[in-house]
Amino acid sequence: MTSLPDSVQFPIGPGGVTSAPGFRAATLLAGIKPSRKRDDLTLIVSDSPATAAGIFTSNRVVAAPVRLCRRHLVGNLAQAILINAGNANACTGAQGMADAENSALWVGQKLGLDPTRVLICSTGTIGIPMPMEKIEAHLPRLVAGLTSPADEAAAQAIMTTDTVPKHGHVRFTIDGKTVTIGGMAKGAGMIEPHMATLLCFITSDAQIEPEALQLALKAAADLTFNRITIDGDQSTNDTVLILANGHAKNNPLNPRHPEWSIFCNALTALMKDLALRIVRDGEGATRFVTVTVQGAPTPADADKAARAVCRSLLVKTSWFGGDPNWGRIMDAIGYSGAELDEHAVEICFDNLVAVRNGRFAEGASLEELAKVYAQPAFSVTIDLHRGPATTTLYTCDCSEAYVRINAEYMT
Amino acid sequence: MTSLPDSVQFPIGPGGVTSAPGFRAATLLAGIKPSRKRDDLTLIVSDSPATAAGIFTSNRVVAAPVRLCRRHLVGNLAQAILINAGNANACTGAQGMADAENSALWVGQKLGLDPTRVLICSTGTIGIPMPMEKIEAHLPRLVAGLTSPADEAAAQAIMTTDTVPKHGHVRFTIDGKTVTIGGMAKGAGMIEPHMATLLCFITSDAQIEPEALQLALKAAADLTFNRITIDGDQSTNDTVLILANGHAKNNPLNPRHPEWSIFCNALTALMKDLALRIVRDGEGATRFVTVTVQGAPTPADADKAARAVCRSLLVKTSWFGGDPNWGRIMDAIGYSGAELDEHAVEICFDNLVAVRNGRFAEGASLEELAKVYAQPAFSVTIDLHRGPATTTLYTCDCSEAYVRINAEYMT
Repeated sequence: MTSLPDSVQFPIGPGGVTSAPGFRAATLLAGIKPSRKRDDLTLIVSDSPATAAGIFTSNRVVAAPVRLCRRHLVGNLAQAILINAGNANACTGAQGMADAENSALWVGQKLGLDPTRVLICSTGTIGIPMPMEKIEAHLPRLVAGLTSPADEAAAQAIMTTDTVPKHGHVRFTIDGKTVTIGGMAKGAGMIEPHMATLLCFITSDAQIEPEALQLALKAAADLTFNRITIDGDQSTNDTVLILANGHAKNNPLNPRHPEWSIFCNALTALMKDLALRIVRDGEGATRFVTVTVQGAPTPADADKAARAVCRSLLVKTSWFGGDPNWGRIMDAIGYSGAELDEHAVEICFDNLVAVRNGRFAEGASLEELAKVYAQPAFSVTIDLHRGPATTTLYTCDCSEAYVRINAEYMT
Repeated sequence: MTSLPDSVQFPIGPGGVTSAPGFRAATLLAGIKPSRKRDDLTLIVSDSPATAAGIFTSNRVVAAPVRLCRRHLVGNLAQAILINAGNANACTGAQGMADAENSALWVGQKLGLDPTRVLICSTGTIGIPMPMEKIEAHLPRLVAGLTSPADEAAAQAIMTTDTVPKHGHVRFTIDGKTVTIGGMAKGAGMIEPHMATLLCFITSDAQIEPEALQLALKAAADLTFNRITIDGDQSTNDTVLILANGHAKNNPLNPRHPEWSIFCNALTALMKDLALRIVRDGEGATRFVTVTVQGAPTPADADKAARAVCRSLLVKTSWFGGDPNWGRIMDAIGYSGAELDEHAVEICFDNLVAVRNGRFAEGASLEELAKVYAQPAFSVTIDLHRGPATTTLYTCDCSEAYVRINAEYMT
């Protein structure tokens, strides 16, 4: 039913971005957004140059730090990542770009690195100039504080209105060497109005070729972060970065390496774990819902149908209300643009058949179906009975709290 | 800024579907949904065969009455429309189709009409069998009650959770003859969970060729009902029908008639009036917002950008909160797929410039912008400065009440 690898093979441990040997991190409260009480500035450093890759928002409105990361990743080498919460540095024009460049320059100076080896990430309010004097003033103390482990502190410092930090690591063997991948993510928080930027940082001691790292990251993101949706709004700042410093001394990984799939599956398992934690911590979310569309003529049809269901406000509010309103799911797949025959559609809530041949199934009971929706987590499986393609998305309901959180006043 | 004709030239009077000579209507409470206290069955009849045209949902999941209307309109002739509220007759399989056909048969028998001259429309809960015995039992009294005027009663009887009836008429002269177009619409109501079906019924005494009527209806719908959005969910039952019985005795209208544009503009003015009333009565709506995108390279780009803004939950909740969060609008147009350069974007709230060159405009004030958002109705105008194309959409905010209304329990 799902094409995701079994993460049971790669159990996720606590840890995070400093789990892999050779990585340190530091955090502090710089006061980038005056009202914030929690650390808001994070620095991750690899003791040696690391192979690096990134995946960024496809939004045409792009934050300055995203532009900078794209440029600095051309050489596939990086050694430090500076992350701030509280200000997105988006829609800030030429000044915003100069600010991101200066941050990289200052971090490079403090660490003795070429500024192109430094990556910058921001999350927070859009359209406000970055308070650069605060970053400059706090950098020396930040660099002095670099340590390992610092997983929980780093995962806390990148949060905006996330209610829980999201971090972990996975460990496995390649060429007889122990390899570690650690990571952290944030997203879906929004106490004050700004985009619910998704940020994810992964570090590993694997030795891996640059193109292979980008390939593995892209493949894993397609199966994980690209399969979650909370409200359908894509941020100007979404970023997933990975640094691999080679300390594990395995033979360089690439798709021809006999254990290539182990690395890819472990990376995917960790990223899936982080992605699902983001959904569970979705703004105002009360239900975690796994939506699978199977039997679609093509993967694109499966994707259209699943996304329409996950984005439908009527479906999401019925989940919130615990209302087994299967008609709204029929309606959403109907307007999704997916190729389908309504009289062939079958829908299950967990293992209960709700719809068969496009109608309420014989013997189905709304009372029993309502019990499925009453759970904090459940699945909706839609079989179009039209072909071989399948997809699974992970999403949450839309509650009154979501509206309340996002209606708060900016001025 | 808008391509809509000036409806000041065609003032909308009270009236409705019986304003045009030769049309009668009747309503009664048949108890199709037991909890309903208001009339739920409506019959509209033209005294003589009328040229007819219709526009229907593009959802692939299609209610039985929509299938029936499409079939009966092949000959472009109709004389009666039976409408029920409380049951959508959607996702009801072969029985649902037979039920719609029987309704047309019975109405035809009572009125002495071929059943293909009868159109059937339904709105209400999806997936519940139609209580046909109630329709059969009440039809004689319904037919006996046909009268004119019956505009307000008919507009009330097609409501679901609409809070106000929506009806009106427009009158003008063609070939020296007085021509009337009357109409009513419902939508956006949802006391119990079902699709917020949009239904619109227009009657006219104009004499008009069948293809011309379909053309005029399609053009008017593209400028009116296809320009409104409340929650982005498209129903299985959406229907716009027009009957024109020719009683005005003008020369038959077609695009070569010298006064063709008068009819088209009057029809558009009436349909725009009805469409905007639907938005104002949107579920839980507290703000009426006119979103215009101009300066787009193509009409498709303008449409993508405007729809993304109108559908964005983050934008809609900021409207509800009265929060002048222009960054969310930048974000939405950025992921809309529209061709744009963020550094050229200009955004105005009413006449106040909020964004210039993709950044918060010099001299703009969040306090002043918040005053615009505090109004019950305002406009957001986005200039992409990339080309000649423009579009305008009409929408509303998303409030906690919307979530509450749609989270209510079905079982």
